[in-house]
Amino acid sequence: MTNKYSFGTNPVQELLSREPDTIEKIFIRDNLRSSASYTIVNAASGHRIPVVKVPEAKLTELVGDVNHQGVVAAISEIKYLEFEDWLDELDPTPETAVLCLDEIEDPHNLGAILRTAAAAGISAVIVPKHRQAPVNATVLKTSAGTAGRIPIIRTVNLNQAILTLKENKFWIAGLDQTAKSTIWDQSYDVPMAFVIGNEGRGMRKKTGEHCDFLLSLPMENDVESLNASVSAALVCYEWKRQMIQRQK
Amino acid sequence: MTNKYSFGTNPVQELLSREPDTIEKIFIRDNLRSSASYTIVNAASGHRIPVVKVPEAKLTELVGDVNHQGVVAAISEIKYLEFEDWLDELDPTPETAVLCLDEIEDPHNLGAILRTAAAAGISAVIVPKHRQAPVNATVLKTSAGTAGRIPIIRTVNLNQAILTLKENKFWIAGLDQTAKSTIWDQSYDVPMAFVIGNEGRGMRKKTGEHCDFLLSLPMENDVESLNASVSAALVCYEWKRQMIQRQK
Repeated sequence: MTNKYSFGTNPVQELLSREPDTIEKIFIRDNLRSSASYTIVNAASGHRIPVVKVPEAKLTELVGDVNHQGVVAAISEIKYLEFEDWLDELDPTPETAVLCLDEIEDPHNLGAILRTAAAAGISAVIVPKHRQAPVNATVLKTSAGTAGRIPIIRTVNLNQAILTLKENKFWIAGLDQTAKSTIWDQSYDVPMAFVIGNEGRGMRKKTGEHCDFLLSLPMENDVESLNASVSAALVCYEWKRQMIQRQK
Repeated sequence: MTNKYSFGTNPVQELLSREPDTIEKIFIRDNLRSSASYTIVNAASGHRIPVVKVPEAKLTELVGDVNHQGVVAAISEIKYLEFEDWLDELDPTPETAVLCLDEIEDPHNLGAILRTAAAAGISAVIVPKHRQAPVNATVLKTSAGTAGRIPIIRTVNLNQAILTLKENKFWIAGLDQTAKSTIWDQSYDVPMAFVIGNEGRGMRKKTGEHCDFLLSLPMENDVESLNASVSAALVCYEWKRQMIQRQK
């Protein structure tokens, strides 16, 4: 899952204050009682980073025979990008599509969505910074090691990000089971943003109002909804199908 | 998940010998020491049915104030059908499609597949009796209560069942990432059977040889495979898309 480590009290403290979200886990020697170690444990707890107490041998196994001072941080392979930074570099074309995840809570769903989005050639997955499953070990495992192959863009305000996407030539399509149009009724020959709602309550009302159109999936046998990762997969691959069709 | 119960030593013993697969769980009063209770526990263990020891009050809560003799069996809502019985009743049309699961092991995948197949209007899901995740509590939960809305057909020999489907007008399409054709390159205007392989090793070689054609899903970013439930969803809904298109 990860094979990058930072070690030593100062480097880990610095990482904790500069880029806490890149830290997956912190290992501390079980008999370490320094004031620096208390500071690290406190800071980690504030960022909800797991801290594990391990014997010296485990630390050496992780980083080799170096002066780790009893502190090792495992760093996530995932590269998060800030929405504004990502948008600055982007030149949207009809081959650009992004997924906007509106508060997906289940890490299995998030992992499965990252894997499918990467496979379908989606440009990026945009997630809100809060009320969203973090990219943790379960997500990386469910993504089968593919989570690092697609940019994950974080934004404080997903609705604001959607409005900004619209100003930047994107069309916004939200998945909504009450919609009359299906995912097959629209042409995706412009830069697209597909919005996938929360597992239980779907898209937030305000988010739905920002969409240029709403799309449903036909369902039989009184099934009321599909798994969020299945809905996301169906829309990603319908976008892909249409693109391949256009290029023929 | 279930709200059907059988109770009393004789009825539960009979169910255990006649239709053990319909039993989800057996509740036994914690102080029951009869020889019948030992027979039941042994038989349940032979069929891998969980047995839970509970206080009298729990049994009464489940089935009310009846003479349960300290033994209650929770019965699955799932209706299994035998392949031959199902086929006898079937008159395949171009609107008939079945999913054949070639040893799906993960109950989460099985549950997700049943949910999506029911939603897409697939006629039945065919599973091998052995080396396949049983329809247990996890499957029912993952299917979000929809597992009972699609017939689950069991067969001792999946390859034999596939040959029999061919003799009965079905065309067999296997998902295989090495295939040149994609799921979008074929027309599904005949009775279809789609074969989904095991999560790790894909379709068995012999099963692949029985297929009339093999289908892949295009993948970017060096992603090698999709989750089995995602692959199944994509092929089910492509079948559905084509059917809706034809009916327009």
